[in-house]
Amino acid sequence: MPGHKRQDFWGGKKGFPNPYGIDITEIDGFDNLHHPEGILRESMGWTADLYGADRTYYLVNGSSSGILSAISGTIPDCGTILMGRNCHKAVYHGVILKHLKTRYVYPQFMEEYGIQCGLLPEKIEEMLIEDRDIGAVLVVSPTYDGVVSDIENISSICHRYKKPLIVDEAHGAHFRYGKLFPASALELGADVVIQSVHKTLPCFTQSALLHIKEGYVDREKIERYLQIYQSSSPSYLLMAGIERGINWMNQEEGRKKMEEFSSHLLSLREGLKHLKHLRLLGREVVGNRGIYDLDLSKIIVSVRGTNITGVNLCDRLREEFHLEMEMCTEDYVTGITTVMDTREGLLRLERALTSIDESLISCDIRDQERFYQAQEPWEAAQDTAVWEAWDSPSEQIPLEQSVGRTVCEFVYLYPPGIPILAPGERISEKAVNTILEYKHAGLFVQGMKDFKSETVSVMR
Amino acid sequence: MPGHKRQDFWGGKKGFPNPYGIDITEIDGFDNLHHPEGILRESMGWTADLYGADRTYYLVNGSSSGILSAISGTIPDCGTILMGRNCHKAVYHGVILKHLKTRYVYPQFMEEYGIQCGLLPEKIEEMLIEDRDIGAVLVVSPTYDGVVSDIENISSICHRYKKPLIVDEAHGAHFRYGKLFPASALELGADVVIQSVHKTLPCFTQSALLHIKEGYVDREKIERYLQIYQSSSPSYLLMAGIERGINWMNQEEGRKKMEEFSSHLLSLREGLKHLKHLRLLGREVVGNRGIYDLDLSKIIVSVRGTNITGVNLCDRLREEFHLEMEMCTEDYVTGITTVMDTREGLLRLERALTSIDESLISCDIRDQERFYQAQEPWEAAQDTAVWEAWDSPSEQIPLEQSVGRTVCEFVYLYPPGIPILAPGERISEKAVNTILEYKHAGLFVQGMKDFKSETVSVMR
Repeated sequence: MPGHKRQDFWGGKKGFPNPYGIDITEIDGFDNLHHPEGILRESMGWTADLYGADRTYYLVNGSSSGILSAISGTIPDCGTILMGRNCHKAVYHGVILKHLKTRYVYPQFMEEYGIQCGLLPEKIEEMLIEDRDIGAVLVVSPTYDGVVSDIENISSICHRYKKPLIVDEAHGAHFRYGKLFPASALELGADVVIQSVHKTLPCFTQSALLHIKEGYVDREKIERYLQIYQSSSPSYLLMAGIERGINWMNQEEGRKKMEEFSSHLLSLREGLKHLKHLRLLGREVVGNRGIYDLDLSKIIVSVRGTNITGVNLCDRLREEFHLEMEMCTEDYVTGITTVMDTREGLLRLERALTSIDESLISCDIRDQERFYQAQEPWEAAQDTAVWEAWDSPSEQIPLEQSVGRTVCEFVYLYPPGIPILAPGERISEKAVNTILEYKHAGLFVQGMKDFKSETVSVMR
Repeated sequence: MPGHKRQDFWGGKKGFPNPYGIDITEIDGFDNLHHPEGILRESMGWTADLYGADRTYYLVNGSSSGILSAISGTIPDCGTILMGRNCHKAVYHGVILKHLKTRYVYPQFMEEYGIQCGLLPEKIEEMLIEDRDIGAVLVVSPTYDGVVSDIENISSICHRYKKPLIVDEAHGAHFRYGKLFPASALELGADVVIQSVHKTLPCFTQSALLHIKEGYVDREKIERYLQIYQSSSPSYLLMAGIERGINWMNQEEGRKKMEEFSSHLLSLREGLKHLKHLRLLGREVVGNRGIYDLDLSKIIVSVRGTNITGVNLCDRLREEFHLEMEMCTEDYVTGITTVMDTREGLLRLERALTSIDESLISCDIRDQERFYQAQEPWEAAQDTAVWEAWDSPSEQIPLEQSVGRTVCEFVYLYPPGIPILAPGERISEKAVNTILEYKHAGLFVQGMKDFKSETVSVMR
């Protein structure tokens, strides 16, 4: 990320103007994002038509603001949300602001790759039957790793129980632009879909879309929150970047580029089939563990069974080949490719992985027991509401002595920003081991007030 | 606005690079706004030192996000805020999100100009004595029209009662850069000060600063809310724009430009002394009606006593002279000048006003009775909490039949975005007349769901 890969597009002939020149404010003729009646209304209407939404909103405060607005606009204060435990921290922020009760559905797990997989529709149905107070269901699909859940089935279930389905599709803004990619949640019955256009389309960082399909949600209420969670002086630079990026994707130049990219992506995947030690995650896993489909533009390379960690692999790619991956865990690395990646760039990645692969040796994966432990999700005991623990008097204690205490802060890897611990959860031995394991592996653990000294904030 | 007036600076030799080239994401070496440890921490520390703050935060979701964070981080849920009734709607949004009770202090009013003036410190003290539950005091200073209240006195009073003072200084980011301007709230004892750098400094729209002075606020709590109200993918374009703009202001080029601008501004004000019908608001009003100081870069031109309205004046400036003013009311127009305005531009404004002035005739202001009615603030009866009315079942009724009902929506002019009616207030005849008066005068009334049909949303 970002999806534009730091290059302008339009073949050079329509270069982006000097940003000061187009950074205007809401004067006559330039409309107002919060009360669109002119060019912005027209532009967002055009995007809604393209995407098949009833309404589309340009977001200048990222998918985060769309997620906060969708939650705030669909669930009453102190209501209940059914959410994937693998949601981004923005979802937890919505829970805190609205004092919601949380019901979690946990992602499935695939040990062979160490990745978190999809959410099972039947599990969601069970929880909807069990808890009639649930106000809305929110799932992330695709995940950061490109795993798509069965949204069609999940949305049917939600609607059967008259609940709206919100899909955090932050990583799937490109789905509609290539046959290679999974279908978007917007085509599969979701009521609110949020997409980060900066992640996989050529738009500026912090820009996103919120799409609404009418029927199960109160559109006006969501709109009112969009006004709250976004600046009253929205950036025309970011808005122009959204329109320009989407327009390009739909013009001949963008379409052609997307076709080429799809074919280069297939070549890359073909080339990586010959790896001896590293393994590329591919569509062969579809059908297992809630994986309904897979976004092939995400390059997930597993190091499991080799003599290096994901962190080592990232370091070697950066240092030896000047290739920056998006994320690494102990078990695998994630690369995000977009329409702006060139054939040459993908070839460099192919050659780099092939070359590193040749230098590796296979290990008995039983030696890597600690890796498994670290990755598999576990159902944490929640003894206090998220918002209550987050806002409680707290104390800092050594992580190693924290088992059994109730945590007050988020602990997560960034990226992808999914909490390992969320406020209100009782800290288990497994959680402590995982966090320390991450730290020792050199991973970027965040959220803790004082991570360096290995202390954690717990309720007094 | 914006303060850069759509021009790049640095004398052309360091033009802003192609935005795609610098729109990066949080990769190694580029730090993370939400957990700054590297270049961003350093940059924000440098700005804090410049401004004399204990901490300064770059805001990528505008002053709005700073205001929401300051409120959320200083007042507990369902607590009480003492606020200027003339605050921006972002403050009311904070009230809604946190379910706060509101105590309003009303600005003074100056009939001769039809402008809302300062807040009286003694009034704030009275209310702090009367209501011990007040969690924090929030005032706007300068106002949209450049009126500065006595912040030094207000902050002493707040601290006497152990309450933090938050100052919305959105329009005063330039104060520290010229001797001509009032002192910043940051030098006068305020605990949290929020400044929109895009309004009066050469930075991009939607960028702002939040400064903290330690002592009366919980810095970490405000920080936690900054993470909630701002995108988890903050724009490096906006952040680079903040640093670049502030850096320029502090370099020789910016300082020289500021000195020149100050002198041009004084010439402009000198030139406008000769107007016969129109009147320029100047420092002669200081000392009256809570006006502690006045920002001379705001050009407030009163039409009171002439045969045109502020809307007419704006139209004539735009159509005959291609000059876009920032805001017009019935009684006056507001122009925002910044360091990026040229001598030539200010001269054009001077000539245009002089020329229009010559074409006007004086009227007996008693004929303009309706103007007075419209502008003077009144103390509305509040019978329901803001958040409660905002979230209640509502119905649309004709505005003219709404007297005595409780309003559910905001009604405000944008700019400046200060509510004429806030949710929970009982609608008075005066409010109805004011809104209709504005509408007939062609002013831009916002917030109402269905303004065209002159209906208002009230509690069922």
